[in-house]
Amino acid sequence: MQIALDAMGGDHAPQEIVRGAMMAAEERDTKILIVGQPSAIEPLLADASTTVRKRLEIVPALEVIGMDEAPMTALRRKKDASIAVATRLVKEGRAQALVSAGSTGAQMAASLLGLGRIAGIDRPAIATILPTLHGGKLLLDAGANSEAKPKNLYEFALMGSVYAEKVLGIPRPRVALLNIGEEESKGNDLVKTTYPLLQSAPINFIGNVEGRDILAGQVDVIVCDGFVGNIVLKFGEGIVSSLGTMMRDALKQSALASLGALLAKPALKDMMRKLDYAEHGGAPLLGINGVSIICHGSSKAKAIKNALRVAQQGVEQQFIAAIKQHFPGKEGN
Amino acid sequence: MQIALDAMGGDHAPQEIVRGAMMAAEERDTKILIVGQPSAIEPLLADASTTVRKRLEIVPALEVIGMDEAPMTALRRKKDASIAVATRLVKEGRAQALVSAGSTGAQMAASLLGLGRIAGIDRPAIATILPTLHGGKLLLDAGANSEAKPKNLYEFALMGSVYAEKVLGIPRPRVALLNIGEEESKGNDLVKTTYPLLQSAPINFIGNVEGRDILAGQVDVIVCDGFVGNIVLKFGEGIVSSLGTMMRDALKQSALASLGALLAKPALKDMMRKLDYAEHGGAPLLGINGVSIICHGSSKAKAIKNALRVAQQGVEQQFIAAIKQHFPGKEGN
Repeated sequence: MQIALDAMGGDHAPQEIVRGAMMAAEERDTKILIVGQPSAIEPLLADASTTVRKRLEIVPALEVIGMDEAPMTALRRKKDASIAVATRLVKEGRAQALVSAGSTGAQMAASLLGLGRIAGIDRPAIATILPTLHGGKLLLDAGANSEAKPKNLYEFALMGSVYAEKVLGIPRPRVALLNIGEEESKGNDLVKTTYPLLQSAPINFIGNVEGRDILAGQVDVIVCDGFVGNIVLKFGEGIVSSLGTMMRDALKQSALASLGALLAKPALKDMMRKLDYAEHGGAPLLGINGVSIICHGSSKAKAIKNALRVAQQGVEQQFIAAIKQHFPGKEGN
Repeated sequence: MQIALDAMGGDHAPQEIVRGAMMAAEERDTKILIVGQPSAIEPLLADASTTVRKRLEIVPALEVIGMDEAPMTALRRKKDASIAVATRLVKEGRAQALVSAGSTGAQMAASLLGLGRIAGIDRPAIATILPTLHGGKLLLDAGANSEAKPKNLYEFALMGSVYAEKVLGIPRPRVALLNIGEEESKGNDLVKTTYPLLQSAPINFIGNVEGRDILAGQVDVIVCDGFVGNIVLKFGEGIVSSLGTMMRDALKQSALASLGALLAKPALKDMMRKLDYAEHGGAPLLGINGVSIICHGSSKAKAIKNALRVAQQGVEQQFIAAIKQHFPGKEGN
C-alpha cells in the first residue's frame, strides 16, 4: 500500500508532518509518499534509519495553498500545490489514500475535483471521532458543509454507519440524530424532516440524542449538519485543551495539592491521553470516491502518525466499496 | 421585593425547591412566595427558623404541568397550575420576578401569555451562563426557539449586551456571533446575514467566534440560534458532569494515585465548583416584559438559591427598562 502525505499543509509543516511519517514508518511497512518541497523535506529525514528511509519517498510539489486562500481559485492557479499533487497520486493509482493537515477547504475541493463523489451521494461529510474514556464516537458532519438538507443527513447517517462498522469494528452501530430533545417532534425543520428518513434507512437508528448524550450516551454514530458539528467538535477540543491548564493551576494552589498532583500525575496523564483528540488521528472525508483523511491544522507528529494509520485501515477495510453497496444503481459524480 | 417561586416544577420538586428557598431566605431579606400544594410544602418548612419562616409565604396552586405536556394546551386546561399562578403573581404586581425549574416550554408559554413580550421584540431568548475558571460567559439563545431569523439574532445580541452590562456588571461587553470560522464570509446563511446587522448594532460587536473560543476566547456574550445554543449548553454540562466521574476513576488506578487524590482533593473540588453550572443559578428569559428565570429541571437547592439571587439582581438592576430603551417607539406584543 502507498499513502500520499501532504507535507506542506498545517501549522507545523513540514517538520511535524515529516516526523509523523517517520513515526508511522517505524511502526509499519507502508510506503509513504511525502509530497512537498524536497529541499525542505530532505534534511528532516537525515536521522531516519535505513528501514524507515526505505519506506518513505519524496514526491516533489513546489507550491503550497495557504489556510486563507479561496480553495477553488487556489487549486486552479497552483497546479503544483502539494495537496493537488498528493490527490493526483491517488487519482492515478500511485497511492491508495491521501492525508493532509492543510486547508480543509482546499483538500475538499481537490478531493471533489480529483477523485469525485461516490455515485448517488450529494455531499461529502467530515466524520470525526470524539474521544471518550470508553472509546470514541463518530460525529458527522464535522464541517464539510455549512448547510444541509434532510437528504444530506440521510446520506451522512448511512455513510457513518458503514464506516463505524467497517473501520471502527462496531457491529450494528447505533446511529442517532443530534437534537434538542429526545422526542421525534423536537427540533428545527431540518432534523424533524430527517427523522422519518432515518427511521426507514437500512441502519440501526436509535432516535434523537441531546448534547449531554454526545459523550455519555449509548450511541456510536452522531449525525448533524456541518455547522452544528463543527461547533461541537471545536467546543469539545477547547474544553479538553483547557482542562490540562485548569488542573495544573488548581493543583498549584497549595503544597499539599502539589504533592498530591505529583503522586496522581500518571493517572491524570492517562486520563488526558484518552481524551486527547490527536490520539484518534484524522477524519475521513466520507462520500469521496477515494480515501481522503483530513487532519487538524494544528496536528503534530503523533496526530499525523495516527492519521496515516486511519488511512491504512480505511483502505484495508474497503469502506468505500461498502458505501457504494448502499447507493447502488445510481449514476452521478 | 417579592419573588414568586414555582415549588412544583423540576425533577426534585418540591423538596429541593423549598430547601433552596430556605437557603435564600437565610442569606437575604427577600420575600419568597412559594407557589404550590400547601400540604406538600408546609411540612418541608418545619425546620425553618422564625426569621426564615417570616420571609417565606405559601401561595396555593393545586395543579402541576408535567415535563411532557404540550405547554399551550396544558396552560389552557390547568388554570391553577403552579407555573400559571406564579406568573399571575408577577402580572398582578404581587411579585417582581418568577423562578421555575419546571417545564421550560410551559414557563415560556406562561410568560408570553401572562407577561407579554417587550414591545419591538419578536422572540424571547434563554440567556444562560457558561461557567469558566475566569467567570461566566453569557450564551443566548440556549433553547427558547429551535429556529431563528437574522432579526432574532440581532435582538438576542442587543438584549444579551444589556443584560451583561446591567446585571453581570461587565462594562461594554464584547458580543460575538458563534460561527465555524472567524471570517465574515464563513458559516451558514443565518449567520452570514446576521453579521452585518450586528456590525451596525449599538453594541461592542467583536465578530465571529468558533467553538473553541466559547470558553477560552476574549468574549462576554455569545449569540447563536436556540438549536445550536441548546446543544452547546448540554454538551458542556455533560462534559463537566462526567469529568468528576472520570477523575475519580482515574485516581483509583493505583495506591499512589489515590493518596495523591486525597491530598489534591480540595484543589480539584474548588476547580469543579467553579465549573459547576448550578453555581450560576437560573437563566433569564430575555424579551419577556417581566423577570422570568428558568432553572434546569435537575436543579437542587443550591441552584434554586442561586436562581433566586439572579432574579433579585435582575429586578434591582432593572434590565428590562434598559432593554426597552433599545427598542423605543415600537408598539407590539
